[in-house]
Amino acid sequence: MSTAATIDKISSIIDQNKDALIARLAEAVEIPSVSGSAKYRPQVVEMAKWMAKSLESIGCENIQFKELGNQKLDGQDVGLPPVVFADYKSGGAGKKTLLIYGHYDVQPANKSDGWNTEPFKLVHDEKTGRLYGRGSTDDKGPIIGWINTIEAHRQAGIELPVNLKFCFEGMEESGSVGLDGLIENEIKNGSFFDGVDAACISDNYWLGTKKPCITHGLRGIQYFKLSISGPGADLHSGLFGGVVHEPMSDLFQIMSRLVTPAGEILIPGISDLVRPLTDEEFNRYQIMDFTVKDMDDATGSSTTIADDKEKILMARMRYPSLSLHGIEGAFSEAGTKTVIPAKVIGKFSLRLVPDMTPDKVVELVEKYVQSEWKKIGSKNTLKLDAEPGGKPWLADPNHWNYEAAIRATEKIYGVKPDLTREGGSIPVALTIADILGKNLLLLPLGRADDGAHSTNEKIDILNYIEGTKLLGAYLHEVAAATS
Amino acid sequence: MSTAATIDKISSIIDQNKDALIARLAEAVEIPSVSGSAKYRPQVVEMAKWMAKSLESIGCENIQFKELGNQKLDGQDVGLPPVVFADYKSGGAGKKTLLIYGHYDVQPANKSDGWNTEPFKLVHDEKTGRLYGRGSTDDKGPIIGWINTIEAHRQAGIELPVNLKFCFEGMEESGSVGLDGLIENEIKNGSFFDGVDAACISDNYWLGTKKPCITHGLRGIQYFKLSISGPGADLHSGLFGGVVHEPMSDLFQIMSRLVTPAGEILIPGISDLVRPLTDEEFNRYQIMDFTVKDMDDATGSSTTIADDKEKILMARMRYPSLSLHGIEGAFSEAGTKTVIPAKVIGKFSLRLVPDMTPDKVVELVEKYVQSEWKKIGSKNTLKLDAEPGGKPWLADPNHWNYEAAIRATEKIYGVKPDLTREGGSIPVALTIADILGKNLLLLPLGRADDGAHSTNEKIDILNYIEGTKLLGAYLHEVAAATS
Repeated sequence: MSTAATIDKISSIIDQNKDALIARLAEAVEIPSVSGSAKYRPQVVEMAKWMAKSLESIGCENIQFKELGNQKLDGQDVGLPPVVFADYKSGGAGKKTLLIYGHYDVQPANKSDGWNTEPFKLVHDEKTGRLYGRGSTDDKGPIIGWINTIEAHRQAGIELPVNLKFCFEGMEESGSVGLDGLIENEIKNGSFFDGVDAACISDNYWLGTKKPCITHGLRGIQYFKLSISGPGADLHSGLFGGVVHEPMSDLFQIMSRLVTPAGEILIPGISDLVRPLTDEEFNRYQIMDFTVKDMDDATGSSTTIADDKEKILMARMRYPSLSLHGIEGAFSEAGTKTVIPAKVIGKFSLRLVPDMTPDKVVELVEKYVQSEWKKIGSKNTLKLDAEPGGKPWLADPNHWNYEAAIRATEKIYGVKPDLTREGGSIPVALTIADILGKNLLLLPLGRADDGAHSTNEKIDILNYIEGTKLLGAYLHEVAAATS
Repeated sequence: MSTAATIDKISSIIDQNKDALIARLAEAVEIPSVSGSAKYRPQVVEMAKWMAKSLESIGCENIQFKELGNQKLDGQDVGLPPVVFADYKSGGAGKKTLLIYGHYDVQPANKSDGWNTEPFKLVHDEKTGRLYGRGSTDDKGPIIGWINTIEAHRQAGIELPVNLKFCFEGMEESGSVGLDGLIENEIKNGSFFDGVDAACISDNYWLGTKKPCITHGLRGIQYFKLSISGPGADLHSGLFGGVVHEPMSDLFQIMSRLVTPAGEILIPGISDLVRPLTDEEFNRYQIMDFTVKDMDDATGSSTTIADDKEKILMARMRYPSLSLHGIEGAFSEAGTKTVIPAKVIGKFSLRLVPDMTPDKVVELVEKYVQSEWKKIGSKNTLKLDAEPGGKPWLADPNHWNYEAAIRATEKIYGVKPDLTREGGSIPVALTIADILGKNLLLLPLGRADDGAHSTNEKIDILNYIEGTKLLGAYLHEVAAATS
């Protein structure tokens, strides 16, 4: 059978299974595997067991619960949920091996937060074709997609064209505690991750609501805390206003010199680190399914700095940014208070893009802030603290892993996917790409409006079912690709 | 008897009464007349009755409890403590009439706040000669000083050389609720305040700890709230950093353009409103008992903008200042958060000096902020709100009221008092000066280190006893002065 014919056959079985696949997702959504709260920890573990059982049912081998020890949560000492490892070994030699990462934990949800339906019950809205429920799109729908497609292969009697290694964690929504260490150890021991050729994560979203995309980059982050202190205690502005150097006046001077209202970063040397734009890359922004209105809808306002689509997309995806987040130690409540705060800590962060690194950024920011501070001539004391940084990530989209995903998307959706980069940071993506040293692909199933961390989270049935087909098609295109 | 001989005689009686005067203050301190808490309201009223009884015992007439209605406090509807009015009518025609204001309520105090002794028990520290207790200096010591001196006159058989009108309130520490309205009404009705020639308030402190002072000015205040809003909700800086005009970047630009780190106000027109410095005034700063070290001790740091005494004193007393207090709506906790706040409200205030008025300042600030806002070119929305302002107050120190106080101080302390202005605002002073239209004098009894609103509040016995003498001497010097 040709690749195309095989994909068609698998897809038609997935279509026939539709009700069962929705039922499977419903079963998973009903387990409130909220990782951020101690009281739900048993349910997170229950969900790990549900995953293991499902993986077993489709013929996975070597299913392991990797324990990560304990954590302090809500004043209790609770066990971390296990990372679930599993192998799907396909028959025949010379097949590629893919690492599949996903997470089985979810964000908190209460009906009283503003949900129209019970968050931990999958509700099928027939009119819109949407499935509402916590975890439907983040990330239970996508990880069950893998189970669904393997099941369809087994029902069709078609052997999987690649080997798969699953790594499903239960702490993604709560900082992926323990995961980095586990992956590093496994690499060192040369065991589970041995022989992986490339990796795939389905844990992000289409850029908009109509056109599929494939994601090959993420911005990094470097967070700073800028402390300015002087007086021994908070002072009364009547008695001391005009008399002393006020830490707030100093802080506003320094922080206002970091970035312009038009988003221009004023720190010398930052823009030199940004990889130049090529025509090929610019073309990607031009063809992306996105409008200024989409951005306005997302921000609930008309406040974009640029007025054209390409500049807006590039601002999010390929340029650094600097945001001022707030001040610790100053008056922050409603009302009026005539205080001169004795010590204030300004918080700001930069989003990093290639070839910026946290180290280089810290060096440039430190140098600039100290030089501006000297100009100010205040008798107060300044201290700049850099938090642990996160590097940007950018994969080569000309790699066979991407070529396979692009062809698979074209087969299932009949359209060439947008090749996007995301403005945010997904630390686990960086860990996997960095530690493995293999090409990583982000292959989203859901849409921009799924409301991942929000109320009324949903996945469209179309995205769930076509997404399941897409994962299957991707495996066959990977097998067909010349590496 | 000459004025000097009379003052000597009264003073010697006050010395003889020393133990009784301390006992009287102890009695008052033991009534916890905390106006800021509903549970102490009966004690505030008890203190009003104690005042009335004391005023009666020294021969006051027309003692009235002026009721001010109710207030909401700690979720309860409680009655406001009365303002106590009383007349002391001296025999003989042609005598001047002074209005004496003071307050019988106190700040909260708990031993657990860091007091070394029970706050509502007057503790005599023999070694230091200090009397510790809540209200000892603010303002029970001073108001009892008036009772003490009249008592001494009666014991000496010396008639008071002036008529007195007492106005003692019980809400000074809690915003003087209802007082303005009462005074205005009384003026309209032409009753209690009829015939007042000048006023005196003993409710502030020496500039330092060694030399007495007399205070003839206070700065006013104009508070602003600067709102900048744009996005419909808080945004994630990964997804939207660099894409939208961030309200925080805009706010830092505007607020950093209000004042320099050296305290220079950047709003055009403000400095033109400041009354020029005369040689006579400058000389007052030169002779003031104050050092840079005193200011460093007060701020717990070495952060004065100026390095000489006169500039420091003028910055507090005779120049305006602008302080940035904080931001409402931004991230203000410890830790890190990568938020782009959707709406932020910057808080800042100016301290006003003659001839600035709140209206003129609001006009200049509004004009400047709007013009800077246009330069910024942001798509966000700016709104500037001005709170109700307070005018500065400045009395003519060449008035007989001041001349009398200066001579009295020289008699009692053997030194010419510093003629100071205060950096803060005392709203009731402005009300009395404004509504009465008469010269007002601030005649402090306590010292700078009394810790008025703090733990371990104290008054030195020297200040209490010599202060009582000072009040008596002042009355005689008023009578002797040519008006």
